[in-house]
Formats: sequence, structure tokens, C-alpha cells
Amino acid sequence: MAPPSILSRYQADLDAYLRDTLTEGRPPLLYRMMRYHLGWEDAQGRPTEAAGGKALRPSLCLWACEALGGDRRKCLAAAAALELTHNFSLVHDDIQDGDRERRHRPTVWAVWGAGQAINAGDSLATLARLVLLRLAEAGLEPAAVVRACRILDEACLTMIEGQCLDLEFEEKAQVSLDEYLEMIEKKSGALFGAALQLGALTAGADEALGARFGRAGRLLGTAFQVRDDLLGVWGRRDVTGKPEAADIRRRKKTLPLLYAQSTAPSEDREALAGVYRRETLGDDHVHQVTGILERAGAYDYCQDMARRRLDEALAELAGTAITPAAYRDLREVADFLLERDF
Amino acid sequence: MAPPSILSRYQADLDAYLRDTLTEGRPPLLYRMMRYHLGWEDAQGRPTEAAGGKALRPSLCLWACEALGGDRRKCLAAAAALELTHNFSLVHDDIQDGDRERRHRPTVWAVWGAGQAINAGDSLATLARLVLLRLAEAGLEPAAVVRACRILDEACLTMIEGQCLDLEFEEKAQVSLDEYLEMIEKKSGALFGAALQLGALTAGADEALGARFGRAGRLLGTAFQVRDDLLGVWGRRDVTGKPEAADIRRRKKTLPLLYAQSTAPSEDREALAGVYRRETLGDDHVHQVTGILERAGAYDYCQDMARRRLDEALAELAGTAITPAAYRDLREVADFLLERDF
Repeated sequence: MAPPSILSRYQADLDAYLRDTLTEGRPPLLYRMMRYHLGWEDAQGRPTEAAGGKALRPSLCLWACEALGGDRRKCLAAAAALELTHNFSLVHDDIQDGDRERRHRPTVWAVWGAGQAINAGDSLATLARLVLLRLAEAGLEPAAVVRACRILDEACLTMIEGQCLDLEFEEKAQVSLDEYLEMIEKKSGALFGAALQLGALTAGADEALGARFGRAGRLLGTAFQVRDDLLGVWGRRDVTGKPEAADIRRRKKTLPLLYAQSTAPSEDREALAGVYRRETLGDDHVHQVTGILERAGAYDYCQDMARRRLDEALAELAGTAITPAAYRDLREVADFLLERDF
Repeated sequence: MAPPSILSRYQADLDAYLRDTLTEGRPPLLYRMMRYHLGWEDAQGRPTEAAGGKALRPSLCLWACEALGGDRRKCLAAAAALELTHNFSLVHDDIQDGDRERRHRPTVWAVWGAGQAINAGDSLATLARLVLLRLAEAGLEPAAVVRACRILDEACLTMIEGQCLDLEFEEKAQVSLDEYLEMIEKKSGALFGAALQLGALTAGADEALGARFGRAGRLLGTAFQVRDDLLGVWGRRDVTGKPEAADIRRRKKTLPLLYAQSTAPSEDREALAGVYRRETLGDDHVHQVTGILERAGAYDYCQDMARRRLDEALAELAGTAITPAAYRDLREVADFLLERDF
């Protein structure tokens, strides 16, 4: 599955802009941790060719701006702010989940300890706000900059609410499918929503049109997360950069499992419960769980759910004034979110 | 030492405004952790009379606004944002330092675990930004709101830089007095600087006058931290809410120790080094260290340093158009920062 063309279209601009916001500062360690996390340097501060993230959120932001006839140069600050905000959440997530590896490399806390990794995340979040304020220098009216700040901050708060729910679910015996969907809409949907809404804002969209872009973005983000859950069970380590069936090994209550728990025949449900009561899960247990999820049709359930969200997102924007070329881009993004294997 | 009158003057307004920004939200846990940390509720969510912080930063913000003839109601959003930002840093600090107690109560991470406490801190920081944007609703021009955001975000980034330095120093064999002063100017000075600068901004001060208020604030904040270091060695548990000689027990490289390390006679320096090489410090060791610091004149050194910073802060604002009553308030604040025992 080739990445959608918007990712390569904006990559160079985005990368240059981001690197420009994050050069040197004091203490060097703080800035080194951020550059390391973004994949630009190794732990010793030497330049690397490590793959960063897919930059989906900032690319969608720039896409939304251009889809409404805006000038992407007026929007780069917002796109960079989104990418920094997303990466703040990843750095803190890795501490919270105890994950020692991301994108085939040790996580920030695994290299520098949890205390400094908290600082790295906090500074990414703060830098994101400072970068967003550069919209003013790019020619956006101050009142629109204030609106942009509110959009990003509200999405950021919603994302943290989702993260709080996610951690709460680990302690809960039962999580319903509805509770789970609320969580991923917050944790993953909100920032995608902000991405599209900010792009529309920098193109001069009014509040109503901006809100439509926001809704479409939240749907895309939710679909993204549903596919992510699926890859957490069926993804390949060499492609995802995460351990095989990582979510099962860590007993994460993700969508495929919750679906099987609520729909599988009773002997499978009991088997699942038995495995999940164990102290540690071996490869045999992992295969047993995967088999139960497959028999329950959890893979198809996830794909159907993602497809429905993507269709809703497309419908939300089909009736707007976006160009035919932009709409084709969006369809390509939707296909990617549905079929991606990394 | 009675608290300065600005603290009681603004307390009711501030408290009402803050509580209004932080009521209910989903998931309840996230909002409960924040209210708990602010001293409004116990861990079960029941209202308490627990003492919150001194609210120095927001009070100084409101003071600066009124000192320049501004209307404090136009400034409350900035004051509340400062208090939330400060409390974000405390919640994350407690995780980083492994402190299980603050203000005579278990810290957030000690109650809910480090993962959720990271979320509590992240949400306080984000809410601070959202609250700051309310300046627009209070009648501030959008361009001034954008300036306010930049002031808070820059101070926040500087504060995190200071926190990063502070943690780095724990791993370092030697820390110079200059390095230490850079750290506390960042970690503690920056937010006090933002407090005075934001207060001036909401009163309509131009950039130059705002910058003077910012400098004065950074000096006050540095003096505050120097006194804090002193209380970390000589403060009384029943007054500070922290264990006796907490900073010595935890081998923190604070100003009194660094001063003694660089100026005490060689036998005392060797004794210090010997004690600090130990795995654990008993009461005897703590008393030995306190004795060495006292002989080295570390107490007076800290007080002299704090006094000098406070005099500079007063001088910075003496030549401005602030009212005589406001200047008397400032002198009272300076006296408190120099003599406070909590």
C-alpha cells in the first residue's frame, strides 16, 4: 500500500519548517531529546536517517488549506504545531505504557529515563504552541490566531482526556464497545479534527465550514486508530516497528479483543478470560487469542467500522467547495487509512 | 511572618475564577486529579479545606495590572493561567523527584500512579492555555491576546529548560554556582517574570514597560527559589509541609550545599564528600551536613543573594509610573520572600 500523495507532496516543506523551529537551545539535552524523538539524531546527537512518523496530521492540515484555495505557506506553522503536539503525546505515552521501543529505536525514556522524558514531552507541547503563534507572522489576523490557539488547545485537552480513559481501561474489568469508541474518538480523533480545522481556518473558512472540516478530521482519526488496533494484533513487526501482536502480549483492551469478548461463543470467551488472568503470556497464548479473535470475526468488524467512519468523512466534505483534485486526495487518504500496514 | 496583603486581597476573586474554569469534565478522574492537586477535594472527590498553594504568581499578576491602573477583572484569566501552569509543573516535578508528599498530602502520582499523574499535569498545562485565551472575552484586543500567549509559552518553555537542568545536576559530579543560578532563574524566575509581564500587558503597558515588569518578576522568582533552597535545609516540617532537611536527605545540590562545597575549609569539604558518597543518610549525617553548611556561612550567603535580587527588582520598578500604594505592596512582597518560613 503506497502512502497517499499528500504525504510526499508536503514532506520537504514540513521537514524544513520543523527543523527550523527546533535547532539549538539550553540545556542542549532538552533539545537533543526532542530531535532524537523526531528521528533526526541518534542518542549521541549525530544526524541519522531514522524514519520519523508519517506526518499524517500536518499533511492533512496543509491539504485542507490548499483544498479551500489557501496558501500553504500561511499554514505551515499550524501543521508543524500539530506534528509537535502529536509527538508530545507519543513521548508521554511511551512512559505511561512502559514501551521501550518505537519506530525501531529505543524510546526517549528508555534512553534518558522517565524524568527527562517527561520534560521532553512537556517541551514539545510548549514548543507546539509557540510555533502556532507564528501564524501571526505568516499574515493571519490576530483574531484568527486566537481561534487557532483555541482549536489546538481544545483538541489537546480532548486528547489527554482520551489518554486518561485509555489508562483507566487497563484497570477496569469490563469496557464496553461504546466506552472504547469514546476513548479513541478523543485520543486519536481530536488531533486529526484540529488538523483539518486549522487548515480550513488558514484558508479563510468561516466557523461553520471549519467545523465541518473538524468533524471530517475526527472521523479520519478514529478510522486511523481502528486500523491501528487491528495492526496491534495482526501487524508485522518488520513493517510496524512494534513487536508482533504487541497489544495482546500487553493485554491491551483494544477493539478486536473487546469485540470478541462481547460476541464470541461462551467457550471462547471463557478461554479468553482464562488467558488474560495469567501472569505472563507466552507465544502459545498469543496464538490462542489471535485464533479466537479471528473466529469471532474481529478483523472484519474493525475494517467495517473504519470504512464506515471514512465514508462519513468523505460525505462530510463532498458537499463543500473543495476542488475535485483535493477530493481525490482525500479518497486516497481514506484508502490508505483503511489498508495501511504500517 | 504574615503573608503580604496582596495574597489575601486577591484570594477570593482568584479562587472563584479558578474553580469556575475547572468544574466537571470527562473522564471524571482527570478533573478529580486536578481538583485534588489544587487542594479542593480529597482523593475520593469530597470537598476539603486543604491548603492550596500561596498563589504568589497569580497575585503578583493581578497586582501588576492594578499597579499600572488596570482593571483586575481584565486580568483574572492571565492570573488563573499562571496558577494552572505552576501547578502543572508541580505535578510533574513530584513524579520526577519521587516525592510522595506535598502540602501535607500525598502527591497525585502517589495516589493515582505516575501514568495518570502525567495526564493530570498535561491537562493542567493545556487548561492554562485555554483559560488564557479568555482574555479575549474579557475585552483584550486579539493582538494583545497573541502577545500574552507568547509570554506564557516562552516562560513555560524556559521553566521546563530549568527543570531539565535541575534533573541533569543530580547526575553531575560538580555543579558550579553560576550553573546553579542559571537553573533557578529558568526554573523559578521565568514564571514570576511572566506573571508581572502579563499583569502589565492587561493594563495596557507597551512592550518596553512590560519587559521591565518581566525582569522584575524574574528577580523576585529567583529570590523566592533561593529562600526555598534555604528552607529545604533549615525549614521546619510543620510549617513547610516537607520533611525536615529534605534536600539534604535527598542529596539535592541546592545553593547552600554548592556554596559550602566551593568555600568550606578542606576538611569540611572532604567530610561532605564522604557523607554524599554513602548509600543512605541517617539523622546523624544530616546534622553533620547542616553543621558544615552553617560553619561555611551558607545561610547568610543565601539570604544576601536573595536580598540583592529583591533590591534589584524594587529598583527596576521604582522608576515606573506605579502608584505609591503599589510600590508599598511590592516592598511587602519582597520582605515576605526574604523572611518567609513556608
